[in-house]
Amino acid sequence: MIDFSIKHVDESLEPMLQNKIDFKTKPTGSLGVLEIIAKQIGKVQNSLEPQLLNPHLIVFAADHGLAKEGVSAYPQEVTHQMVLNFLGGGAGISVFCKQNDIKLKVVDSGVNHDFGTIEGIIDKKVGNGTNSSLGDNAMTNDQMNQAIRNGANVVKENVGPDCNIIGFGEMGIGNTSSASLIMHYLTEIPLNQCIGKGTGLEDDQLAKKLRILENVVSHHGAIANPEAILKSVGGYEIAQMTGAFLQAASEGKIVMVDGFIATAAFAVAAAIQPQILDYAIFSHQSDESGHAAFLQYLKAKPILNLSLRLGEGTGCALAYPIVKSAVAFLNQMASFEEASVSNKAEA
Amino acid sequence: MIDFSIKHVDESLEPMLQNKIDFKTKPTGSLGVLEIIAKQIGKVQNSLEPQLLNPHLIVFAADHGLAKEGVSAYPQEVTHQMVLNFLGGGAGISVFCKQNDIKLKVVDSGVNHDFGTIEGIIDKKVGNGTNSSLGDNAMTNDQMNQAIRNGANVVKENVGPDCNIIGFGEMGIGNTSSASLIMHYLTEIPLNQCIGKGTGLEDDQLAKKLRILENVVSHHGAIANPEAILKSVGGYEIAQMTGAFLQAASEGKIVMVDGFIATAAFAVAAAIQPQILDYAIFSHQSDESGHAAFLQYLKAKPILNLSLRLGEGTGCALAYPIVKSAVAFLNQMASFEEASVSNKAEA
Repeated sequence: MIDFSIKHVDESLEPMLQNKIDFKTKPTGSLGVLEIIAKQIGKVQNSLEPQLLNPHLIVFAADHGLAKEGVSAYPQEVTHQMVLNFLGGGAGISVFCKQNDIKLKVVDSGVNHDFGTIEGIIDKKVGNGTNSSLGDNAMTNDQMNQAIRNGANVVKENVGPDCNIIGFGEMGIGNTSSASLIMHYLTEIPLNQCIGKGTGLEDDQLAKKLRILENVVSHHGAIANPEAILKSVGGYEIAQMTGAFLQAASEGKIVMVDGFIATAAFAVAAAIQPQILDYAIFSHQSDESGHAAFLQYLKAKPILNLSLRLGEGTGCALAYPIVKSAVAFLNQMASFEEASVSNKAEA
Repeated sequence: MIDFSIKHVDESLEPMLQNKIDFKTKPTGSLGVLEIIAKQIGKVQNSLEPQLLNPHLIVFAADHGLAKEGVSAYPQEVTHQMVLNFLGGGAGISVFCKQNDIKLKVVDSGVNHDFGTIEGIIDKKVGNGTNSSLGDNAMTNDQMNQAIRNGANVVKENVGPDCNIIGFGEMGIGNTSSASLIMHYLTEIPLNQCIGKGTGLEDDQLAKKLRILENVVSHHGAIANPEAILKSVGGYEIAQMTGAFLQAASEGKIVMVDGFIATAAFAVAAAIQPQILDYAIFSHQSDESGHAAFLQYLKAKPILNLSLRLGEGTGCALAYPIVKSAVAFLNQMASFEEASVSNKAEA
């Protein structure tokens, strides 16, 4: 296991940030969640004038051995097809990143497909998909460590110091199952409350998914260590996201957390280094059952709740303008004094 | 009363819009609220390729006679001071409109202040604030009609046909009281569930506000007609917003509804012409108590829920990028066929 050193943010700026916010020309507290985000970013950057620079969105893609047991509504080939769609600009995340001026990068973390030499893909393949966790570990210990390291290296090698905010997304047919298992092991919430319809299972298919995942849990028994959870039931894209989250936060960057699967990767990172929570902005609560409880476990308050369940980092890209607004009001709004506006009489 | 002619949108495009959405490279329904917005805008524009053009945000400002009874945490002079702050670029709405490329226009609907000749303000003053509805009608019948007409004219005269989406905001010390009274009369929800702390009343001040508003209701008795409600307990900025909503929708523009007070103005418009609901996008649920129930009364599903209670149209400006995303995915995402991605097997 590689070491990450994430520092708790310095809380000492909090009163000055609060003061700056409270003297903006608006009723006290009236920008709600934006005020919380503004304070958080101010503390991460240790600045009363924080800036968001060169935002990136990195999508990690990989295949899952468990997919062949029939846990998804879509065939496995969709993973590699969607990678090409990301690169071609036709996917949801491509459109939203373009709209909001976010740099999109796409990583082959372990797709079961040979992409050959395609421009734009970051090759961090650990294998051609994981093993099925139904009867085996999803990956070996070496593969798990390599995946975390590869994820960290994606950030080190592809995102410069001029970027201070990153969102992570994923693509991998079958990966809600992996995320549900991770959630179950980390939170100890019963498995049936950790699973959902993923990309669109029918009720009978969902019942089948639950039976399969119950069998996975029977096979592996209790697992408490976060790396062991990744090894047993994780995915290459999930483990790489975990490494990327840890690396980005260790560099002092804001990390944006997407939906259910990204939350699983983040939760593993937070189990390894809880300080990462200081750097995390939760972009949205997804429509996938279980995400609400998973966010609650992390004490996370997501920005959006739009019944999204697309993944790819789309929640991050959609929430990013709101994060920008939080920083914009902190920097650009006039104070009562600057604007010669009367403040509320002191109580 | 002037006539507005708002047509119900043509629903016949619905199946084709749904079809276009369902063949985008994403799980069926996975863009949640964005899919609903995309369909709505497609129907309003009767197009499978709708566009958002030249977005505007118009803030109506006016004073309230009721403010002198002590229903607000801020003194009345803040209304005109904030108007100057809007024009100077220092207010929340100024910052968010600039961020999201929205044209901001500011209207003096009836501020108790002589602005003289200041560049940028649209003069539609009906009077120097309304009468106190505690013992009098807020305005005469003529003033009410003039306010609605002035609001419509703001749209006619200041927003060209090249703009097809408008948000409306407001500023007026004391105007949550007016909005609460309008809500109570329209929805028949008990007054204590229609009032909240506005810009930041303490508990005892809130109790006082309730007593004052109860006295207003005792004085006026039952009122059912929407124009009569405006006349008795409305505000000039609220009545002008009502007129502006009706005019914008009659021109086929999308209208974005902001928080509690804007919802009151919109609800009056919807009581006059229910077809306006076809054109309305509800930007957010505010932190002002009563807004959730008011939205429910309108069967409205707001985009954001960020504990905002600033008004000014800030919810519209903050939600606008999400609305843009809805249109962007509809126009720019690839279909399964275009991207050579396998679709889910038919059930």
